[in-house]
Amino acid sequence: MSTQLYNLAQQLQQAIRSSNDFQQLKHAYEEVRRDETAYRMFTYFRDLQMQLHQKQLMGTSISPEEVEQAQNAMTQAQRNEKLANLMEIEQRMSMVMADIQQIAMKPLEELYRSFAE
Amino acid sequence: MSTQLYNLAQQLQQAIRSSNDFQQLKHAYEEVRRDETAYRMFTYFRDLQMQLHQKQLMGTSISPEEVEQAQNAMTQAQRNEKLANLMEIEQRMSMVMADIQQIAMKPLEELYRSFAE
Repeated sequence: MSTQLYNLAQQLQQAIRSSNDFQQLKHAYEEVRRDETAYRMFTYFRDLQMQLHQKQLMGTSISPEEVEQAQNAMTQAQRNEKLANLMEIEQRMSMVMADIQQIAMKPLEELYRSFAE
Repeated sequence: MSTQLYNLAQQLQQAIRSSNDFQQLKHAYEEVRRDETAYRMFTYFRDLQMQLHQKQLMGTSISPEEVEQAQNAMTQAQRNEKLANLMEIEQRMSMVMADIQQIAMKPLEELYRSFAE
C-alpha cells in the first residue's frame, strides 16, 4: 500500500480515536465495566450471540429455543440503563464507521457498476 | 459524522481512486470488458458465485454438484490470461482496502479488547 494511502489512513484513525462519538463509546464501556450486574448481563448476551453465529458457521442448526434465548437476553440487556446507553452509542459509532467505509469504497463500487452495465 | 471525519474520508477516497492499484484494476476490467470470451466466462463465474450465496442466505441447501460447478468455472476463468490478471489485481486491491479498514478500525478493536480483559 502506498505511503500516501497509509498516511491518510493513519490520520483517519487518529481522527476516529479523538472523535466525540468514540470518546462517548469509550466512556459507556467504562461505565458498564464498573457495574458488575451490567457487565455480567452484557457478556452473557454477547456470548450467546457468538455461540449462535458459530453454530451457523459450522452448519449446525439453531433451534427456535436458542433464538428466543438470545432475544430474551437482548431484551434484558436493553432494560439496563447503562447497557441500553452502550448499545445506542455502539450503533451510532457503527453507522459512522459504515459511512466512512462507504466513502472509501465508492471508487470500487462505481467501477463494478460500470463493468456490469 | 463530524466534518473532520467526513473530509478525511473524502481525501482517502480520492487517494484510492488515483492510486496505482486502482488504476491498474480499472484497466484490467476494461481489458476483460473488451474481450467477449473473457467477459462471458467472468460473468458466468460471478453469477454462479452469487447464486450459491443467495441459496445460502435463503437457507436453501447447496448440492455438491453446484459447488463443483462453481469451482470448475473458477478454474476455467483462471486459465484465461486477462481474467487471471483481473483476479490477481482484484485480490491486491482487496488487500489494500482491508489494510485501510484495519487501520481505521484499530481504535475500536483496542477498545473491545480492553473491555474484554
